[in-house]
Amino acid sequence: MNHRPKIVIIGAGFGGLFAARKLKNQPVDVLLIDKRNFHTFTPLIYQVATCALDPSDVAHPVRSIFRKQQHITFLMGEVTNIDYDARTIEVDNEGERRHESYDYLIVATGNTPTYFGNDDFRPFSFELNTLDDAVRLRNHLLKLFERAAWTADLEKRKPLTTIVVVGGGSTGLETAGAIYELYNHVLQREFPRAKLRTRVILIEMLPHLIASYPENLREAARKQLESLGVEVRLNTKVVDVATDHVVLGDDTIIPTHTLVWAAGVQASTLAKMLHVDLTKAGRIPIHPTTEVKGRQNIFAIGDIAYLEDQNGNAYPMLIPVAQQQGELAAENILRRIRGEAPADFEYDDRGTMVTIGRYRAVAWIYNRVPLTGLIAWFAWLGLHIVTLIGFRNRLNVLLNWAWDYLLYDRSVRIILEREKPRQQTLQSQDE
Amino acid sequence: MNHRPKIVIIGAGFGGLFAARKLKNQPVDVLLIDKRNFHTFTPLIYQVATCALDPSDVAHPVRSIFRKQQHITFLMGEVTNIDYDARTIEVDNEGERRHESYDYLIVATGNTPTYFGNDDFRPFSFELNTLDDAVRLRNHLLKLFERAAWTADLEKRKPLTTIVVVGGGSTGLETAGAIYELYNHVLQREFPRAKLRTRVILIEMLPHLIASYPENLREAARKQLESLGVEVRLNTKVVDVATDHVVLGDDTIIPTHTLVWAAGVQASTLAKMLHVDLTKAGRIPIHPTTEVKGRQNIFAIGDIAYLEDQNGNAYPMLIPVAQQQGELAAENILRRIRGEAPADFEYDDRGTMVTIGRYRAVAWIYNRVPLTGLIAWFAWLGLHIVTLIGFRNRLNVLLNWAWDYLLYDRSVRIILEREKPRQQTLQSQDE
Repeated sequence: MNHRPKIVIIGAGFGGLFAARKLKNQPVDVLLIDKRNFHTFTPLIYQVATCALDPSDVAHPVRSIFRKQQHITFLMGEVTNIDYDARTIEVDNEGERRHESYDYLIVATGNTPTYFGNDDFRPFSFELNTLDDAVRLRNHLLKLFERAAWTADLEKRKPLTTIVVVGGGSTGLETAGAIYELYNHVLQREFPRAKLRTRVILIEMLPHLIASYPENLREAARKQLESLGVEVRLNTKVVDVATDHVVLGDDTIIPTHTLVWAAGVQASTLAKMLHVDLTKAGRIPIHPTTEVKGRQNIFAIGDIAYLEDQNGNAYPMLIPVAQQQGELAAENILRRIRGEAPADFEYDDRGTMVTIGRYRAVAWIYNRVPLTGLIAWFAWLGLHIVTLIGFRNRLNVLLNWAWDYLLYDRSVRIILEREKPRQQTLQSQDE
Repeated sequence: MNHRPKIVIIGAGFGGLFAARKLKNQPVDVLLIDKRNFHTFTPLIYQVATCALDPSDVAHPVRSIFRKQQHITFLMGEVTNIDYDARTIEVDNEGERRHESYDYLIVATGNTPTYFGNDDFRPFSFELNTLDDAVRLRNHLLKLFERAAWTADLEKRKPLTTIVVVGGGSTGLETAGAIYELYNHVLQREFPRAKLRTRVILIEMLPHLIASYPENLREAARKQLESLGVEVRLNTKVVDVATDHVVLGDDTIIPTHTLVWAAGVQASTLAKMLHVDLTKAGRIPIHPTTEVKGRQNIFAIGDIAYLEDQNGNAYPMLIPVAQQQGELAAENILRRIRGEAPADFEYDDRGTMVTIGRYRAVAWIYNRVPLTGLIAWFAWLGLHIVTLIGFRNRLNVLLNWAWDYLLYDRSVRIILEREKPRQQTLQSQDE
C-alpha cells in the first residue's frame, strides 16, 4: 500500500465536504484544503448578520469533522496555482507556500459576488457571502441604530434608518425580512425615546422576485414581504451608489448608509487556474461525470462547475446540486481507480424554499407542491435544523431560535470588532 | 416632576450596571454611557480566548437589561471630557460629539493593562481585558496551530507551539491552564500526523502565585498547574520581547510568537479627567461614601476608585467590590437627593477563587475556608453560571461547557476575522 492514490479537494463547502465524506474508509489519501478552518452553513449567514445566531452556530471546524479519519488531512491555506500538467498545486498560508501533488483533483471553491460590471459599487456594499461579511454587517447595523438614537435631527436620522437590499433572490428576501424584523420589532423597543422607524427597501431588476419559482409563489413571496413591512421595487436598477445614498434607475435618490448587495454571484476566480473556456458566469464546463472538459483527472463540482440537464438548462447554484455532485465526483474517482466507467450526474431535486421573517415563507417541494405561510415556514425551520452540521450547532441554533421567537428578542446583539490590530509577530516575521 | 435629578453613569461594567440597577423605579433620570453596546462578564473572557465560549455568551446588550425602565437611557459613546465645574460631560461617537449635563456623576470605567514602564512590550503582547482582545487571541492561537501543522521543520515549529503567559494572578493562571488544555487535549487530537506538543510557560516576578491567597492555597495552585502540564517560573521577569522570542531576567531566550500579558492593571485613564491626585496605579481616592475626594457630586466605584479599609489596606480590584460600591453610590445619591446623610462602604467579602483547567481550582471562601481540587472547581462552576447576566447566556454557557467537558471538545474553534474592511460610509462621511 505504498502508493495510495492521492485526492486533493479544494474547498470545504457543501461540495468539497460531501466529496471528502464519501471517501471515508476508502483506500485513498485525501487532502482537503480551505482558506478557513471551518465549514460554513451558508443558508443561515443572514441570521448571523441580523443578530439571531452566533457565528459559531453556523460554522463547524473542518478538522473535527474528520478527526477519526487518519487518511483525510486538512490544510488551511489558499490555492494560488494549479499545474495540471505536473499534477501539483501551490498553496499559500500567510505568505508561506508549499506544493502538493495529486492523482485526482476536485475543485469546489463555490462562488463570489458579482456586480455585473459595476465594480465601483463594491466599496459601498455589504455582502453576505462569508461569515466575516455577516459579522461586518451585524456591527454596522447595530452601530447605525445607536447613532440614530444619538441624534434628534430627523433629516440626519433618515439615512441611518433606511436599508437598501439589492437582489430579489432568496438571499435578498431573507435578508430584507430579517433586517426589518430586527429593527422594527426588536431594537425599536429598546430605544423608547428615540421612536425609530426603519425603512427596508428591496430592489429587483426583473419584474418579479425569486425567478426560479412558479408565478403564484413569486407573488406570494412579494405579498408576504410587503405584509411584513418591506418595500419592494421591481423593474428597478441601482445606477449609482455613494456613502450616504443610492440612486435608482428612475432617478429616485434614497438616503442610506447601508446597501446590501445580494444581486448575484459568479464562479470563484479559482476557475481561471484551469485555463479552459469558462461560461459567462465564470463557471467551468464539466462532463456529466463532473470531470472538467479538456483536463485530465480534474473534477469540478457545485457553483464553480457548469453542467446542463437533458433539457439544456444549467443546473442551478444550489447546495443540493453541490452535495450530490461532490458525492458523485468522489465515487467516480473511486471507479476510475478501480478501472471502472464513471457514472453520470442525475439530480435528485427536492425543491427549494425561502423564509421571510417570522412565520412567513414559500416552498416549492419537489418542484411540484407549493407551500406558503406558516406551513412553509415550519418546513424551512425543520429542514435547516436537521441539515446543520454538528449536533452542538443544532442544539445552539434551536436554543437561540426558541429564545428569539418566544421573546421577540435577538440573542446576539453585540458590536464586536477589533479596532486596532496590534499584534504583528507572524506577519512581520514572514514578509 | 419637571426637574428630576439626572444621574450620569460612565461605564457599564459590574460597578456601573449595579448602580443603574439600584436606580430602577426611582424618581431620577439615569443616563448610562459605555463605549460598547454590551456588558461583559469579564471573569470568563479567557474562555472565549481559548474556544470554550462564544463572545455573545459572556456579553449582554445593555439596552436589553433596562428595556422596561423608561427613565434609564443608554448611550453608546466614549467620554472625552468631564467639566466638573459646569457639571457636564462630553461624549464622542465615531467623531460626533455631544454634551450631557448631570446632577450626579458616577465614574466606573474600570481598569486597563499596565506594562509597568515597559510600554514597548505592548505591540508584541496579547491582552485579556476586553472581548475584542479575546477574539484576537483566539484567532491567533488557532492560526498558530494550523501553521505548526503546516511545517515539518521542528525548529520552526517550536516558537509556534510555545506560549508564554506573564502574570501569576488569577487571569494568568486561568489563561495558562485553559491554553494548555486547548492545545494538548483538544486540538492535538486533530493533527494526528503532526504530533504537535505545546509548551505553556507561566512567568511570575514574585516568589509565589496568586499573592492575595494564603500560603497553602498558593502552593496548591502551583502544584495543580504543574500537574496539568504548565511550566511555572517564579521569581522571573520578562526583560525583552520580539516577534519570535521572549527574554527572561536570567537571560533565557524562549522562542515564541505568543506573549499573553496578564501581569497587572491600572485604573482606566478616564480618572485623569477629574484632575485630582491619583494613586500610583492611577486610581481616584474616594471617601468611604464612594464620593470622590475634592469633587462635588461625583462618585467613583470599582477598579478606578481607591479606598482603604479600617486596617489601611486598599480594597482590591475585584468584581464584588465594584458591585457593592456601585449599589452604595446609587443609594448615597438617593440619600443626598432626600437630604439624608450618605452611608459608608462596608465590604461583604465572600472570598475569591481561581480555576485551573478541568477539575482543578482553588477557593478561599469567606477568606476563611480553603478549598482545592474538584470541590473548588465545582464551586467555581456553580458561582459563574449563577452570576452570569441573562438567562440565555446561562443556558448557552451550560450547553457549551457540558459539550466540551463531556466530549473533550471545544465548541468555538473558528478563525474569524474581517481581513479587508471595505465599508467606509460612516467614517468617510463624518471626518
